[in-house]
Amino acid sequence: MTEHERPAPDEDREIAADAAADEAAAPPAPDPLAELARERDDYKDKWLRAHAELDNVRKRARREIAEAQTFAVADVLRDLLDVLDNFERAAGAAAAATVDAEAIRSGVGLIHGRLREILGARGLVPIPTAKGDPFDPGIHEAVMQMEGEGVEPGAVLEVAQTGYRLGDLVLRPSRVVVAR
Amino acid sequence: MTEHERPAPDEDREIAADAAADEAAAPPAPDPLAELARERDDYKDKWLRAHAELDNVRKRARREIAEAQTFAVADVLRDLLDVLDNFERAAGAAAAATVDAEAIRSGVGLIHGRLREILGARGLVPIPTAKGDPFDPGIHEAVMQMEGEGVEPGAVLEVAQTGYRLGDLVLRPSRVVVAR
Repeated sequence: MTEHERPAPDEDREIAADAAADEAAAPPAPDPLAELARERDDYKDKWLRAHAELDNVRKRARREIAEAQTFAVADVLRDLLDVLDNFERAAGAAAAATVDAEAIRSGVGLIHGRLREILGARGLVPIPTAKGDPFDPGIHEAVMQMEGEGVEPGAVLEVAQTGYRLGDLVLRPSRVVVAR
Repeated sequence: MTEHERPAPDEDREIAADAAADEAAAPPAPDPLAELARERDDYKDKWLRAHAELDNVRKRARREIAEAQTFAVADVLRDLLDVLDNFERAAGAAAAATVDAEAIRSGVGLIHGRLREILGARGLVPIPTAKGDPFDPGIHEAVMQMEGEGVEPGAVLEVAQTGYRLGDLVLRPSRVVVAR
């Protein structure tokens, strides 16, 4: 017998009995109540899983934020170990021998340069500030007012301390003396 | 007529008509299909909202992680501006006048101390390493083996570079010469 032949009458009865047994378990039955209940259970299940996932994502986010802070700080500190090493070496050299002022001075210049390089690679840039610049409260902090010579009243007369920014963030404004 | 008296036959009919009108709109009707549909819609709505919230929480978490990194780095860099200032001042003083080696040396010591203080406040600590310590691959890195004198074979003979840790995190192991 091929697949397309009709089954014998006995087989017909068996198939009908199978179908009746399946009815309770399988969906094909057009029972709107069962169908709705299935849909409701399905959405309820999805909702519960999304809810649990939401809890997990929130917890994970809190953990990841804390880790991101720790690793970001660790990263900067790891860079700076190089500067600490330079200091140790310089201190060792300076203590061991009779070194002249010029040698120490150039050593300090090297360490300073290395520190600026490391911080510059992190995005730290000095805020360029010069005599005559118009006062800008976004990047300047006035520490004093003085009689000005050669600059407009209200302009920068003297830079007391260089400011720095990190990207758009002003880490510290330039502290300036302002012309009266 | 009191509340407990039965209504007249005419009123009975009116009440039945009212109830039929209410059935479609109000919940008390014991219609299992409508009740199931309501429950299904309710869970579907909850699921969709939880799903949207999940998207939001994920997006927010990514943004907050990036911000946490930026602000953590900004925080460390802000601390270090003090060291940069010290360097600038020292360079200015050293360039301006004829300063003796001792003055520069003590200035360098001060800057070094300030840097260690700032990094120490962040949790950076040197890994104590000394001649004779048993070699520990968790905190030591062997750079060389040499004939040892006065230490057990395999122990630390000399510290080539101090290691550092940040809390439990070994930022850099101590580099050591190991006794053969």
